[in-house]
Amino acid sequence: MDASAIPIYGVILAGGWGTRFWPLSRSQYPKQVVRLLGSESMLQATVERLLPRIPPERLAVVTNASQAELIHQELHSKNWDGVRIWIEPEGRNTAAAVGLAALFLGKEAEDAVMAVFPADHFIQDRAGLLQALDLGAAWAQAGYLVTFGIPPSRPETGYGYIKQGPPLDELGRAYRAGRFIEKPRLARAREFLSEGGYYWNSGIFLFRGDVLMEAFSRYLPDLHRELLRLRAEDDEATLEEVYRNLPSISFDHGVLEKAENVAVVPVEMGWNDVGTWEALHELFPRDERNNVTIGRVMDQGSRDCILFAQNRLVATIGLERTIVVDTPDATLVCHRDRAQEVKDLVTELHRQQMVESVQHTTVERPWGRYTLTDEGPGFKVKRIVVDPGKKLSLQVHQHRAEHWVVVSGTARVTIGRDISMVASNQSVYIPPQTPHRLENPTVEPLQIVEVQTGGYLEEDDIQRLEDDYWRPDRA
Amino acid sequence: MDASAIPIYGVILAGGWGTRFWPLSRSQYPKQVVRLLGSESMLQATVERLLPRIPPERLAVVTNASQAELIHQELHSKNWDGVRIWIEPEGRNTAAAVGLAALFLGKEAEDAVMAVFPADHFIQDRAGLLQALDLGAAWAQAGYLVTFGIPPSRPETGYGYIKQGPPLDELGRAYRAGRFIEKPRLARAREFLSEGGYYWNSGIFLFRGDVLMEAFSRYLPDLHRELLRLRAEDDEATLEEVYRNLPSISFDHGVLEKAENVAVVPVEMGWNDVGTWEALHELFPRDERNNVTIGRVMDQGSRDCILFAQNRLVATIGLERTIVVDTPDATLVCHRDRAQEVKDLVTELHRQQMVESVQHTTVERPWGRYTLTDEGPGFKVKRIVVDPGKKLSLQVHQHRAEHWVVVSGTARVTIGRDISMVASNQSVYIPPQTPHRLENPTVEPLQIVEVQTGGYLEEDDIQRLEDDYWRPDRA
Repeated sequence: MDASAIPIYGVILAGGWGTRFWPLSRSQYPKQVVRLLGSESMLQATVERLLPRIPPERLAVVTNASQAELIHQELHSKNWDGVRIWIEPEGRNTAAAVGLAALFLGKEAEDAVMAVFPADHFIQDRAGLLQALDLGAAWAQAGYLVTFGIPPSRPETGYGYIKQGPPLDELGRAYRAGRFIEKPRLARAREFLSEGGYYWNSGIFLFRGDVLMEAFSRYLPDLHRELLRLRAEDDEATLEEVYRNLPSISFDHGVLEKAENVAVVPVEMGWNDVGTWEALHELFPRDERNNVTIGRVMDQGSRDCILFAQNRLVATIGLERTIVVDTPDATLVCHRDRAQEVKDLVTELHRQQMVESVQHTTVERPWGRYTLTDEGPGFKVKRIVVDPGKKLSLQVHQHRAEHWVVVSGTARVTIGRDISMVASNQSVYIPPQTPHRLENPTVEPLQIVEVQTGGYLEEDDIQRLEDDYWRPDRA
Repeated sequence: MDASAIPIYGVILAGGWGTRFWPLSRSQYPKQVVRLLGSESMLQATVERLLPRIPPERLAVVTNASQAELIHQELHSKNWDGVRIWIEPEGRNTAAAVGLAALFLGKEAEDAVMAVFPADHFIQDRAGLLQALDLGAAWAQAGYLVTFGIPPSRPETGYGYIKQGPPLDELGRAYRAGRFIEKPRLARAREFLSEGGYYWNSGIFLFRGDVLMEAFSRYLPDLHRELLRLRAEDDEATLEEVYRNLPSISFDHGVLEKAENVAVVPVEMGWNDVGTWEALHELFPRDERNNVTIGRVMDQGSRDCILFAQNRLVATIGLERTIVVDTPDATLVCHRDRAQEVKDLVTELHRQQMVESVQHTTVERPWGRYTLTDEGPGFKVKRIVVDPGKKLSLQVHQHRAEHWVVVSGTARVTIGRDISMVASNQSVYIPPQTPHRLENPTVEPLQIVEVQTGGYLEEDDIQRLEDDYWRPDRA
């Protein structure tokens, strides 16, 4: 069979939030939806580069409840509603996520080939990826658990490595996998590079569904048993119960490092895991002093830096090997050698319950987005954008009043029993305890400035009476 | 005569804007009004520490037109309306400013003692200053041009030095001045320190008015002639004409370095010229890793840094000898050894006409202040604070409409011929081309959120029909 004709089911793992990309990533705005490399999010780019080899109907995204809505929006905005979203009740590492996703194949396709992709990696050479997918699919169909190995270009200590074993063909296009090595020290990474035959573990895998289940039954029997139970009884309660019992182990560790039938396919495709801010130095053009500058940056004499200004002016003088990331509510300044430690910083922000670790001043919503622009005792000011044809829920606030000034577009506003059209430069007042709804019935974006007043202004003072987006009644 | 009984007239030079303190200082918010060291501005602290030795009625501030209103507010808010403000038509360095200020003595006090102070220095030991003023006044009265010399504590290369000559008394409390040395190289500065008898030039001078004029007549005859002309004809046109003719030279260079009768009084008073961000490392407490942190800073392992967060969160990891200054619209990150170069950066910002070099998002006004909190095509949002008892001008805008939502306090609002009281949580609409006025008739601060809409939203779309603050009709 021609390998390009083998149907492939794709599973995208999108459970983490990429703490190392704070302050651009937040727990409610994870790295996979960040638009770091152009106008598409990492997730959208991940789907895009698989099309049409893997069509939306054969794709699934595995994520958690707190990100599901956001991921739905990301897919919906590209008209990829055929992509299925699987919600894990809690994070149980990649073995569980891959297992859950395998159920996606269902009975009718349990021996089909399935490919697993991280949601937040960068791949420059799409043709290289697609070619490797065909090759990988052929080996997967032949019964191998296939991993993509990236030929290393530097002695990177932040990645895992796979050593190649004996060749599987005569062209050197696939090997049996040898040892898996966790992030090595620099000296060892240098040895790997000079010795040859070692690859970075890309986190991209292919296998037949039945081969996967067979491997689970042998190396992770607990997981296997629970997956069979879930296949028999696919409801939310079972899923939650199953997840409580699942072992938390990575797919590499739990399966690949133990199995006999593992293949590694070397793939050159301009891959980067975009693991820390340090990655930008690889991915973006550099100036004559080896700086990457993005946004409104004014530099004098810095060298080897990564300077990222999201909207405000960032001025730098005489820095070396420094990362500066400026967002509307938080600024990070970090030595490049310590980019990994952003993770610890975010842990500390979380511990101190700082809102800057949770969300941006701009919050995406199914109907558009809002930006908190000002606040003080007794008031908050937001800019609200409602996309064409969208509406907010019919809602009531117990404590706050709202003043809306339409600054562009036209709104359809419900206040109590009155419905009226409010044009640009007009305003309306919504008293507390009054049902109201904001709607954009036009084909142009609607933008309003909302001034909230009252003694209690938190987001949870909301009761949703009707909603297009099936959100909970409160918050 | 008891030196403490010698009347002293004080002149504060407040013409510059302290570019090296950008982004905290701006051309319309100069360093002397910055609240860097507590709740008082540098200028207010400068006046405060002279009281009551030099009362407001014997004090003058020399400044330029663009800063005059701001300086008036600074003095007025402390009830120091007795302080006279002299406005130079254009900057002509310190010799001209001192000369202009000397006219302040007038005919009746032309032989009185006058002291000159920079507006933006820090002096920790007020008692030390006042004691030195008495001593200096005595030598000034005796006919000397007196300078205060600071015994150096380190080989500073950023200051000018004065070498002491023969002692003037037997207690070593005053010397004839020897050579003046401009900012030396490090090796020389080290020699000065080990050799002894060298002082930092503090920029504080004392002299009798007639002694000063005599020195001008000898060393700067052009300046002397123009000052006499101005004394005869004290009007604005003459002042402007005179200033066009004045030489631009420093008082040190033009007079002190040449005159015979110069004395230096050594003064230990915890002096710091607060010349660059580097000064904060001297003036503020340091943590166990020798960092100065001010504001909402979260640091991991940085050393020897100055980290200043005005309102947003600043997170830092592993920095060394780095200055971070974060303001609402601009962030500076600079190596400490290059703090002087902030000046060049600001020159470049000015050349590129970036608003961040001119003003803050919060702009002080005689009636209070406003903060630009959001803007986009066709709209601007401001938070406006009107101080108790104050009112804005009665004004008209040709192009923009305004929506005002009162978020705290009570406003008296004039729209056309209607005057009404607008309470918290109420709003009003001001159509274009309609005379209107905002006023706070209460004893509590008034705070409103203003949403401007229209095709043209610049500050110069204003016509002032009546104003409490004698401002121009437009802009």
